[in-house]
Amino acid sequence: MIAGVDFNIRKAEKEDAPVMMELIYELAEFEKAPESVINTSRKIEIDGFGENPLFYALVAAFQDRVVGMSLCCFRYSTWKGKRLYLEDLIVTGNFRGRGIGKALFEETMKLAKIENCSGMNWQLLDWNTPAMDFYKKYGSEFESGWLNAQIDL
Amino acid sequence: MIAGVDFNIRKAEKEDAPVMMELIYELAEFEKAPESVINTSRKIEIDGFGENPLFYALVAAFQDRVVGMSLCCFRYSTWKGKRLYLEDLIVTGNFRGRGIGKALFEETMKLAKIENCSGMNWQLLDWNTPAMDFYKKYGSEFESGWLNAQIDL
Repeated sequence: MIAGVDFNIRKAEKEDAPVMMELIYELAEFEKAPESVINTSRKIEIDGFGENPLFYALVAAFQDRVVGMSLCCFRYSTWKGKRLYLEDLIVTGNFRGRGIGKALFEETMKLAKIENCSGMNWQLLDWNTPAMDFYKKYGSEFESGWLNAQIDL
Repeated sequence: MIAGVDFNIRKAEKEDAPVMMELIYELAEFEKAPESVINTSRKIEIDGFGENPLFYALVAAFQDRVVGMSLCCFRYSTWKGKRLYLEDLIVTGNFRGRGIGKALFEETMKLAKIENCSGMNWQLLDWNTPAMDFYKKYGSEFESGWLNAQIDL
């Protein structure tokens, strides 16, 4: 087992793409939508670690193993200006409850501040009460009544 | 009154910022949240029309008057890769029902294709059935059960 603080948070690197993809699948399983994942670790490599990265990611490493990640990008709110959009915050199963998610979330908030964002946005499933309890500690506001819409091209 | 096709769609310019801000307020009133708008037309100018624009916007012009807009930015879906996120699609009150929203939406989809996005995402309020009917024509999928979360910094 791991100690509560025995991990470090660092910027994700190209070599992390395969394990990031594993974490993404793990979250998609939890969210009951594994069939929605069409991304691949090769695409993660190209999209995130080339000349014009499409996202910014942090990973949590325990010894040399990546056990969690936070992935975000910038978004523009017509109401509130520049925002950091947190796409995914994931800690792998048996590493939860150790403060890793907290550390990832707080480092992500730091990035939002450094980048002069007026705030952070993200989504969670309405039945995910552990996530809600986690985010409530930070004074997050939750809003229901919106539908997510999409078209695949 | 205007004819059905008597308008043109063009890329938004810096000078459009004040009327864009008016449209943003109009939508916020419709969505019953005008108090949530802290953005200003000066910020829109800086954020959208400087060296590193934070968003991409189209406007619909009838004669020289801007009567609608679409505003979007890129987002990264861990499930589906690069996406175009449509933040707002607005047509001002008495110019609705003339095909302006359709033209704006279709031009925005073209941009998503040109930019190699795997698709487009956006949100709508669950009581906004005219919007739902509009988007259904394009084969959009809608998903409920998500909460929007945010922290202002």
